[in-house]
Amino acid sequence: MIIDCHGHYTTEPKELHDFRQRQIAGVKDPAQTPSAAPKISDDQIRDSLENAQLKLQRQRGTDFTIFSPRASGMGHHIGDAGVSLRWSQICNELIHRVCTLYPKNFIGVCQLPQSPGVEPATCIGELERCVKEYGFVGCNLNPDPSGGYWTTPPLTDRWWYPLYEKMVELDVTAMIHVSASCNPAFHTTGAHYINADTTAFMQLIMSDLFKDFPTLKFVIPHGGGAVPFHWGRYRGLALNNKRPPFEELVLKNVYFDTCVYHLPGIELLTKVVPVDNILFASEMVGAVKGIDPQTGFDFDDTKRYIDQLSFLSENDRWKIFEGNARKVYSRLAARLDKAAA
Amino acid sequence: MIIDCHGHYTTEPKELHDFRQRQIAGVKDPAQTPSAAPKISDDQIRDSLENAQLKLQRQRGTDFTIFSPRASGMGHHIGDAGVSLRWSQICNELIHRVCTLYPKNFIGVCQLPQSPGVEPATCIGELERCVKEYGFVGCNLNPDPSGGYWTTPPLTDRWWYPLYEKMVELDVTAMIHVSASCNPAFHTTGAHYINADTTAFMQLIMSDLFKDFPTLKFVIPHGGGAVPFHWGRYRGLALNNKRPPFEELVLKNVYFDTCVYHLPGIELLTKVVPVDNILFASEMVGAVKGIDPQTGFDFDDTKRYIDQLSFLSENDRWKIFEGNARKVYSRLAARLDKAAA
Repeated sequence: MIIDCHGHYTTEPKELHDFRQRQIAGVKDPAQTPSAAPKISDDQIRDSLENAQLKLQRQRGTDFTIFSPRASGMGHHIGDAGVSLRWSQICNELIHRVCTLYPKNFIGVCQLPQSPGVEPATCIGELERCVKEYGFVGCNLNPDPSGGYWTTPPLTDRWWYPLYEKMVELDVTAMIHVSASCNPAFHTTGAHYINADTTAFMQLIMSDLFKDFPTLKFVIPHGGGAVPFHWGRYRGLALNNKRPPFEELVLKNVYFDTCVYHLPGIELLTKVVPVDNILFASEMVGAVKGIDPQTGFDFDDTKRYIDQLSFLSENDRWKIFEGNARKVYSRLAARLDKAAA
Repeated sequence: MIIDCHGHYTTEPKELHDFRQRQIAGVKDPAQTPSAAPKISDDQIRDSLENAQLKLQRQRGTDFTIFSPRASGMGHHIGDAGVSLRWSQICNELIHRVCTLYPKNFIGVCQLPQSPGVEPATCIGELERCVKEYGFVGCNLNPDPSGGYWTTPPLTDRWWYPLYEKMVELDVTAMIHVSASCNPAFHTTGAHYINADTTAFMQLIMSDLFKDFPTLKFVIPHGGGAVPFHWGRYRGLALNNKRPPFEELVLKNVYFDTCVYHLPGIELLTKVVPVDNILFASEMVGAVKGIDPQTGFDFDDTKRYIDQLSFLSENDRWKIFEGNARKVYSRLAARLDKAAA
């Protein structure tokens, strides 16, 4: 089985966007705030997926996607915590409907109702609802709800601890993923996403967070940002700061996905990061669309790159494609085992 | 000849730090502002270099370093433009003294007196002074003088154009290099530096800056941040945004250094980035100190990694070690040719 740990619902029906536009207008002019949730039929959901994610799963030979709302759409910087909560509930419900319609193809990860300056503890209710009522297996955790101004304490600050306690209790994993940048300095998918991955890793290696939460698990997307390319730099900085070896410091808790859109990048990733810490992912249909003229295949068809790595053993390959995802998302493993039984 | 295009004076005599501490104290309490520049003797300068940069040049077999004030020390976010100007003048003068004492080992690049919210045009005077009076060959350009809050327009905004006009007129190159982060989210050398490199490249590929300045040249340090690792992502994003091919868009103007502190990273860099766009650099004595236990050699001994790349031709190697630096820093080439004659 091939599990893609990083997919977003980026082909949402128009009604969802219409709702959001009115909700955003309502931040300035409350009269515009929609009173009801968007009306979206099951057929609309099917139509939105059949020619996109589902077709690509079949074409590329992947089986199952850990699926969450559009990351750039989370927009935690827009409006207040109430706006964020309502929007998150609606987006998460839609993911739940996708997973209910296609239980063999998708399992859910939720958007959290974060808001700049508001304690992450306020997200516990929605996380718990999504896990217990919807069967979700994780959440996307935004280290910068300000959208590019980085006004929030580092992920290792006690500010975040109540949310981590709940994650550990529920046994769910967070992908560390920012949303759209509203800072003109940062292109959303070309700078802000990648910078956030790099930033988060550096925060984690400078702290003892995982001493406090030995079972807390994070996935850093987009191959870990700049981290594998600068693996020597990070090992060196850890030593300079008298931090323990990575094995002890982060490698039991931090995982990297394979959303790196060319073969040399995937080669580097799998050479420097232990294979036990790499989870297959494509982020399709996502950040980078279209065909790479150098290969004739989609940039985000990351399975092709991994298939070309002759130095991986069959067991390595199984770990990247399935085993590690089962290990990192325990609730997913339980669900798959139940379905197989 | 082996030219290291990225060295900072990180072993400055104590008097310089004392001056800066009093200058910073003077921001709140003007009575503390030092009236005179720090008194530093030639012997103090020699002592600060002989057992550090000069010893390492000899040990590693590099010849010449393009040398600038400590990057994390620029501190553009501290005080106002007047504070920044005085500090920059003092730091640049010290670099000039280093280059005068050791003309066969160092050539200068200046710190600019940038300040958050202040137009870059105000830096022209100091740039011109350093080039014309001191014989410097470039400047360090900080894309985020706020120190981690990114409140400045992108490097491609007309805000920066007067400075670029002067750079073109003087025929000098800028290394895009931030200073220390005062944002708790960003570790200076582990996140902010690398993020800035990534951010700058993305800004550049989204703009037509080099149509307006066809001869403007930038070096992106630290191997280009995350860019080579995500080369496919950047090629894809350029295509998605209907931008021209990289050859036309940036490769005549943007160069990457080799400050990547492990062999697999240097391998990736030299595989994906054209060899014409790579300049040898180590940033020693710099961001990452000490010996890599995996190799037994200094992390920042980047020459060793390049020496190990068997797929490079002799001409490739010459370009990385010398030829590209001569091309990118034309004033350096003129100076070396004159010295050789």
